[in-house]
Amino acid sequence: MVRLVPRETKFFEMFASMSANLMQGAQLLKNILDTMENVEVRVQQLHDIEHVGDDITHSVLTKLNQTFITPFDREDIHRLATSLDDVLDFIHAAGERLVMYKILAAPPSSSELAQVIVKQCAELASAVSMLEKHDHVLEHCVEINRLENEADRIARDSIARLFEREKDPIALIKMKELYEVLETATDKAEDAANVLETVVLKGA
Amino acid sequence: MVRLVPRETKFFEMFASMSANLMQGAQLLKNILDTMENVEVRVQQLHDIEHVGDDITHSVLTKLNQTFITPFDREDIHRLATSLDDVLDFIHAAGERLVMYKILAAPPSSSELAQVIVKQCAELASAVSMLEKHDHVLEHCVEINRLENEADRIARDSIARLFEREKDPIALIKMKELYEVLETATDKAEDAANVLETVVLKGA
Amino acid sequence: MVRLVPRETKFFEMFASMSANLMQGAQLLKNILDTMENVEVRVQQLHDIEHVGDDITHSVLTKLNQTFITPFDREDIHRLATSLDDVLDFIHAAGERLVMYKILAAPPSSSELAQVIVKQCAELASAVSMLEKHDHVLEHCVEINRLENEADRIARDSIARLFEREKDPIALIKMKELYEVLETATDKAEDAANVLETVVLKGA
Repeated sequence: MVRLVPRETKFFEMFASMSANLMQGAQLLKNILDTMENVEVRVQQLHDIEHVGDDITHSVLTKLNQTFITPFDREDIHRLATSLDDVLDFIHAAGERLVMYKILAAPPSSSELAQVIVKQCAELASAVSMLEKHDHVLEHCVEINRLENEADRIARDSIARLFEREKDPIALIKMKELYEVLETATDKAEDAANVLETVVLKGA
Repeated sequence: MVRLVPRETKFFEMFASMSANLMQGAQLLKNILDTMENVEVRVQQLHDIEHVGDDITHSVLTKLNQTFITPFDREDIHRLATSLDDVLDFIHAAGERLVMYKILAAPPSSSELAQVIVKQCAELASAVSMLEKHDHVLEHCVEINRLENEADRIARDSIARLFEREKDPIALIKMKELYEVLETATDKAEDAANVLETVVLKGA
Repeated sequence: MVRLVPRETKFFEMFASMSANLMQGAQLLKNILDTMENVEVRVQQLHDIEHVGDDITHSVLTKLNQTFITPFDREDIHRLATSLDDVLDFIHAAGERLVMYKILAAPPSSSELAQVIVKQCAELASAVSMLEKHDHVLEHCVEINRLENEADRIARDSIARLFEREKDPIALIKMKELYEVLETATDKAEDAANVLETVVLKGA
């Protein structure tokens, strides 16, 4: 069938920028948690990255509202943009907790969780780059879901250990929230993967 | 009017399986909280039930993406599947808290909350079974909403009492979260009821 | 183009009632936090206001399900109604925390947050009143987003200060949650503003 009205390909480029920016945020968070040096300055950089993310998200939604023919279902474009944005929001929120709670030493398992987020963001970037051709997208989605299960297990074990060992309730509150925020970032990545899966299945 | 394209009735069967599986999860949680025996083993069973729930949800969504004519609005099928799945997720999360926080004695009001969840799941199962014919669905939805208000009151009173009596902050954190997770399960059941109401009203 | 089927204008009236009721709730909360007098009685009034909000929301959704031609996209009517309802839910939840946790003195920054909520609700009411003609709606949305950023900063600073100064973990848990609930109300106002923006941009 010949397409008479050209579909808008700009959306794919915008999602590619979103994923690249998200990847940068994930890597910076991992780096901060690994070294715990210059935390305040680098969380500010994370804040700037999140701000860029907000701007791209806003552009996608504005463009969506003004485009008649979209390359895939409108509600899926909306859900993909907001779920990618949510991942970055929680990456940023994790960094913010370090500053807000004056956390000086991050436990190794928080770095591990950040590493899972980095991997998920790499998978998201790959899936998004293949979305137009529908190639291998589902494989990346399966891997993102597997990583979410892994993060779930790490977070659960870390929180259980925290309740066994940490006797200072205020320190416990801080660290528990750090784990929870990191784990929520991986949930949001799974949400984004679910949208990508939907897009591919509808088009199949 | 004669329907030329047969509507897909398989969805109703899948939602019936989801509700039956959900009911099993709710009853198991109630049972665990009532007896607090073999907690770890039975929370693992709850985990398996949740896993079955995930699989059915995934089948519904996959089928939805590949079905052209659906028995009711696509977005309502999506929302019903995800909200039923959410109820089970929080039922499972409540069980997980018992293991993760090594809670040995569950207070009577947590059993009471689980009982409200069981009742809501029974109402959901009835409503879902009548959805195709639209019979009495609204009555079940009203009852699910009433039960959510009841759970809200129980949880609020339990948490207020906890803050009055529990002087150990770490024990307080654990129990507060158990109540909150149980209460959230009843919120998600209300969300599912709202979708069912929507489906009936649209078809009226 | 001549419109042959009249669009339903009743929705605009219903959203105006919702906004007026929301404004009442926001002002009452601000007042309670300012004076901290007769808290229990006035939180009960807040509860009644929330109940009125629930009823209007329910009417909007029922009407939506029974209306064929809507003045703007169905899913946006749904999202606007539920996000305005969410703002009021969190306003009520903030009041409830005062009673549940027997908070006798609210810190000045909780009043400040309530003041931001009042301003957002005023902007929402203005935006909703102009929605039919699309006049100046976007300006109100920009201001609501700015106010959300302000609330975010106030909440973050207040919580950081709380962790520095409050050595009683149970008191800290109570106050942290009060700030978080207030901040979430401003997030929900932003969600409502995003829907309003979408409606205007689609119609542009």
